[in-house]
Amino acid sequence: MKAKILIRPKQGILDPQGKAIERALPALGFEGVSGIRVGRLVELEAASTDRLAELCEKLLANPLIEDYEIELENGG
Amino acid sequence: MKAKILIRPKQGILDPQGKAIERALPALGFEGVSGIRVGRLVELEAASTDRLAELCEKLLANPLIEDYEIELENGG
Repeated sequence: MKAKILIRPKQGILDPQGKAIERALPALGFEGVSGIRVGRLVELEAASTDRLAELCEKLLANPLIEDYEIELENGG
Repeated sequence: MKAKILIRPKQGILDPQGKAIERALPALGFEGVSGIRVGRLVELEAASTDRLAELCEKLLANPLIEDYEIELENGG
């Protein structure tokens, strides 16, 4: 089945990419946007979901600084 | 309101990060995982949603090689 994995910087961890975007916004004329956090999106097709959490912890996310969330599609 | 923006490499565009992960999987003992595509996740708080698409096109995504999807939360 298809899985969508959302990886985000943990609460309290600095997110320099998000800060850089926030600083760029006024120069581009955007206002009223705040709290930007940049993470990663990994989409994959897995024969079984048994080891997806392990896959996230070992390969996709850095559990020291990132949280992950697994969303299953196709009736998972 | 809160918005979640999913940015993915377009269909047909090479995704070297995804390929690298796919190649690493067998060495780590994972099988049955395929079709890995790596994108970005941007979460933000916006006063209005009027210009979110423009924000995505101008700042967050590269529309030549990436597709984006905006998901609104908090009753958006």
